[in-house]
Amino acid sequence: MSIQDQQTKLTIGLFGFGVVGEGLYKVLAHTPTLNAQIKKVCIRQADKERNAPSELFTTDADLLLNDPEINVIVELIDDANAAYRIVSKALAGKKAVVSANKRMIAEHLEELIALQSTHDVPFLYEAACCASIPVIRNLEEYYDNDLLQGINGIVNGSTNYILTKVSEEHISFETALRQAQEAGFAESDPSLDVQGIDAVNKLSILLAHAYGIITPPHTVVHTGIHNLHSSDAVFAKEKGYEIKLVAQARKLDDGNIAAFVLPQFIKKNSQLSTVKNEYNGVIIESSLADKQFFYGKGAGGFPTASAVLSDLSALRYHYRYEYKKLRYQTPSLLSNDFYIKVCISFKGLLQVPHERFDKILEWSSNEHRCHVTGIIHFSELVSDLWWKQPDVSIILYPDGIIDGYQPEKKEIKSVEFAELIC
Amino acid sequence: MSIQDQQTKLTIGLFGFGVVGEGLYKVLAHTPTLNAQIKKVCIRQADKERNAPSELFTTDADLLLNDPEINVIVELIDDANAAYRIVSKALAGKKAVVSANKRMIAEHLEELIALQSTHDVPFLYEAACCASIPVIRNLEEYYDNDLLQGINGIVNGSTNYILTKVSEEHISFETALRQAQEAGFAESDPSLDVQGIDAVNKLSILLAHAYGIITPPHTVVHTGIHNLHSSDAVFAKEKGYEIKLVAQARKLDDGNIAAFVLPQFIKKNSQLSTVKNEYNGVIIESSLADKQFFYGKGAGGFPTASAVLSDLSALRYHYRYEYKKLRYQTPSLLSNDFYIKVCISFKGLLQVPHERFDKILEWSSNEHRCHVTGIIHFSELVSDLWWKQPDVSIILYPDGIIDGYQPEKKEIKSVEFAELIC
Repeated sequence: MSIQDQQTKLTIGLFGFGVVGEGLYKVLAHTPTLNAQIKKVCIRQADKERNAPSELFTTDADLLLNDPEINVIVELIDDANAAYRIVSKALAGKKAVVSANKRMIAEHLEELIALQSTHDVPFLYEAACCASIPVIRNLEEYYDNDLLQGINGIVNGSTNYILTKVSEEHISFETALRQAQEAGFAESDPSLDVQGIDAVNKLSILLAHAYGIITPPHTVVHTGIHNLHSSDAVFAKEKGYEIKLVAQARKLDDGNIAAFVLPQFIKKNSQLSTVKNEYNGVIIESSLADKQFFYGKGAGGFPTASAVLSDLSALRYHYRYEYKKLRYQTPSLLSNDFYIKVCISFKGLLQVPHERFDKILEWSSNEHRCHVTGIIHFSELVSDLWWKQPDVSIILYPDGIIDGYQPEKKEIKSVEFAELIC
Repeated sequence: MSIQDQQTKLTIGLFGFGVVGEGLYKVLAHTPTLNAQIKKVCIRQADKERNAPSELFTTDADLLLNDPEINVIVELIDDANAAYRIVSKALAGKKAVVSANKRMIAEHLEELIALQSTHDVPFLYEAACCASIPVIRNLEEYYDNDLLQGINGIVNGSTNYILTKVSEEHISFETALRQAQEAGFAESDPSLDVQGIDAVNKLSILLAHAYGIITPPHTVVHTGIHNLHSSDAVFAKEKGYEIKLVAQARKLDDGNIAAFVLPQFIKKNSQLSTVKNEYNGVIIESSLADKQFFYGKGAGGFPTASAVLSDLSALRYHYRYEYKKLRYQTPSLLSNDFYIKVCISFKGLLQVPHERFDKILEWSSNEHRCHVTGIIHFSELVSDLWWKQPDVSIILYPDGIIDGYQPEKKEIKSVEFAELIC
């Protein structure tokens, strides 16, 4: 166990000079103790006015990737495909890489781990998940697989902003989305956020560091808030809940892992209910330490730059992800074999195939909407043809994963259901 | 930047078999993947019944310290002096050490850092601060000195339990203290907790990892909740605040650090107000990432065992504290040269020397108590003869450190003060 006293001087090639890139440039220029300097910045549009000397910029990626003096590539561009080409070329050229591109990382994690291993270089991406909250680093370093019971996270700031407005200001989802776009928290094309794709990208990154599970994000059951109906917010309020979009992973009794992104009813006394507007919050539950809660700004230029900076600082001390759960332990497996307690809300009385429920616990309907609460086997969600219809919404109950549930195995026929609710 | 693939098998010599020690023993016995085994346990009382095979136990410390097969000493005893002897002997014998003894660590940090360096062995103590919350590790690894603006933490569960009861159940401090003792959250001799000594021990450990400041805890201005008066709780409530005991460190404009443990008024919208009962919570503020909040169980057998376990896991991967802020950067200095906004509450009208205030902003008095709110230079607290009197309490206002305050330099004479408040 010897100490590594040497700090590496970082000479950085930066891709992208948006809010995060420019923030990073400013901080590094004013903080000599960080021992890191941006040598060149690769941008797409050469003619745009920038707040930095023009000789810093180039549009030629290879000028950075082939410069032997540059030992770190920081990738902060939007385009996930271009980002993957840059990052993989940089790693193959034995340059350390820091990236904030969650979509690119989530979709290519297997290849990116292989590249790190083959070329023996570090690739850090704390900024890709909850920006300034050091959740990847803590899962990787601090929480041991065998003891990690679960993760519950609000990992997408835009949807949380919308849900907060709906809950606190009693406005419609549509109005709240428009306000979020005006406030700059939602993209002009907000589909990645509102459909839960951004959240499931982050969840799949967390699964790798929490449980050693490498799985493409599209294989993880997910939805967003785009199908939620105003009456769902009313329904939640009547029961004393709020609705949040939660990315969740939980160890089941058999040792396998349940994982999904779904809207969820949140109790007022949950730490997640304190996560408002564009903030993020993650509860990490371990069998010994009970619940730990990490909270902070999950998006935005400075919080993201902060995480990039922490990664750069870590590179100076030779830090790298070891993917411990994957390498040194038997990685866990994802499972669909468990029951969940959900509320399905829909428009037409017979729109939802009731035979998918194992048990119906409660129902209500009015002229606008029907709400059915029941127990359902999670595998029913793997086919998403029925529950992702535009007029159907699904909301998980608190503690909604029911492990060890004894099914009643009684098929609920549509006709019985119609009788039940009429 | 090469990866360290080798995991070290840990053979542990354990000192102490209380709640934490026994919890650790059970977890290690049931978790072979941790690759760690307790070989021998040193206890004080040989004749006590234990839930483990009798051949595991000894009362001879040297049997553990001189065993060449034992490569890690885990120290979990109460007695700080005995703990220091054990830990320093273990380090000198080139054994890695994990400890949860905050008092011992805070009081001997300088020597313990020197021992680690001289003998080139790791000494980890995440459990010593906020138990299961990985605050030391995050300050050491994740938050860079130049950007770390401040730490605000509720780091003592017993006093927080008492303050929560006082605030929520409107009972007296005395009743709440008795209830805390009955619930097992406060010691039978609770003076270390209620006088703020436990909190200042933790703060001095945090100062080392946050800012590279090594200072004995008694040199840091601190008090507890023992002098708070029932009318202080009423005063706080009227203003929409709660009172919490907060350990605080903050970077001043001149780069120096303000640090203290004082009761503090907390706004309802602060994350610290969500920290109730025996829980701990720490807000870490950086100039880029804004406020991050870490929350979890701060005391108790299992949360403490959880932190010890994370340290053991880290030893397997050759982790050690590098005291980066101390070694690789110019460490910050503690300063008393700033102003604070406080409420001083006292019994007798002329008990408090009013000339210590730079400015009095507000006062009130009734038959029981006087409350004076004003601006005071922090150096006035270094002499604690006046503000630590049994009938005087001091409570900091939210954002109560007023950096860059322009003093009025007008001496407030007792006679004017008497006129002012009469």
